[in-house]
Amino acid sequence: MTDVAADAAVVLFSGGQDSTTCLAWACARFRRVAAVTIDYGQRHRIELEAATRIARAAGVEHATLPCDSFSALGGNSLTGGEAVEETAVAGRLPNTFVPGRNLIFLTLAAAWGWQRGIPHLVTGVCQTDYSGYPDCRQETMDALQAALRAGLDQPPLTIHTPLMHLTKADTVRLLRDLGRLDWLALSHTCYNGAVPPCGHCPACHLRAKGFAEAGVADPLTA
Amino acid sequence: MTDVAADAAVVLFSGGQDSTTCLAWACARFRRVAAVTIDYGQRHRIELEAATRIARAAGVEHATLPCDSFSALGGNSLTGGEAVEETAVAGRLPNTFVPGRNLIFLTLAAAWGWQRGIPHLVTGVCQTDYSGYPDCRQETMDALQAALRAGLDQPPLTIHTPLMHLTKADTVRLLRDLGRLDWLALSHTCYNGAVPPCGHCPACHLRAKGFAEAGVADPLTA
Repeated sequence: MTDVAADAAVVLFSGGQDSTTCLAWACARFRRVAAVTIDYGQRHRIELEAATRIARAAGVEHATLPCDSFSALGGNSLTGGEAVEETAVAGRLPNTFVPGRNLIFLTLAAAWGWQRGIPHLVTGVCQTDYSGYPDCRQETMDALQAALRAGLDQPPLTIHTPLMHLTKADTVRLLRDLGRLDWLALSHTCYNGAVPPCGHCPACHLRAKGFAEAGVADPLTA
Repeated sequence: MTDVAADAAVVLFSGGQDSTTCLAWACARFRRVAAVTIDYGQRHRIELEAATRIARAAGVEHATLPCDSFSALGGNSLTGGEAVEETAVAGRLPNTFVPGRNLIFLTLAAAWGWQRGIPHLVTGVCQTDYSGYPDCRQETMDALQAALRAGLDQPPLTIHTPLMHLTKADTVRLLRDLGRLDWLALSHTCYNGAVPPCGHCPACHLRAKGFAEAGVADPLTA
């Protein structure tokens, strides 16, 4: 650590609905907030543009870090050429699972924060997600926090997961209650990168369901 | 995991003395061994060439994964333009410390192994290293192993650290006892990338000291 910024947080920020809600949550809680986006070769550059627009609307520092490792690892639908599976196949993870992705992204955000003395990390991982990704569980976040504290020699490092036990409807309500629902008009969710959203990929389904259950109109499609 | 290869290991392999010793250790212990090298923008491409030569001599599969994140993070002497500090400054880490590096590299190697059903990881981290890097400690490796088991949903994943409590002289003797000292003639250690080695950087000092204490001639300089 080169500095002390105890009341500062880095939000791992994709520009999607969940991390936008995390950004609003962090802005309400910490004196200083920065957003870190990982450019990992996502199919849709529109996600990176959404992240930039929302960070600008929030008035926070925004850094984009490259990570070309996952496109080299290959074998998954978020960076490779495979079609997106709309539902998980029984007995195995859906092909949107990128092994190690959340671990790597959070470690990169932590390293960026370490260089600035920032001990708080905020991520939108959510155990109630439809997909059952193992790197979205609280157990994984607790273990990663321990690894980052030890590996960066930064004992106060804390991973915050404000969405962990929320449903998508809860997440919509949280952002509404934080008064930042308008940021979602700038966000991007669709796995297929369509504008307007395709409406039938798992991410579009989940987003629409959350808004419907919360009784709130999605500013992106309204 | 797409496969089961319980008696297989991935060696995180830089092409230096320590990971070469780990490769020899793994080849003596596991039925199948693969070497994974991370191309993270190291100053000296000679390191990558050494890794390729040694993996070929060992007859193991060798993969190189890119990772462009650390050169973007900047601020350290192994990827950036800063001079290498020959000794650590009291009260802070030497500028050869790259925050998060070992955590990221091991996670990438684990992800590569996960895709092939390989549960064993071998790394040359060493607590007795002069530098006191926090990501070289057994405590960090234990915490990372827990994070990888949870995040990859791969309970048998095991990080092996055969050099953890060895001195450099012990490491030289281990490789000699494994009958693979000749591989070190192909290796690279010098932080300054010099051929023959510069002889005065911390890595050269440490290597020379280890060979001298073990009473063994270094095949690279002999």
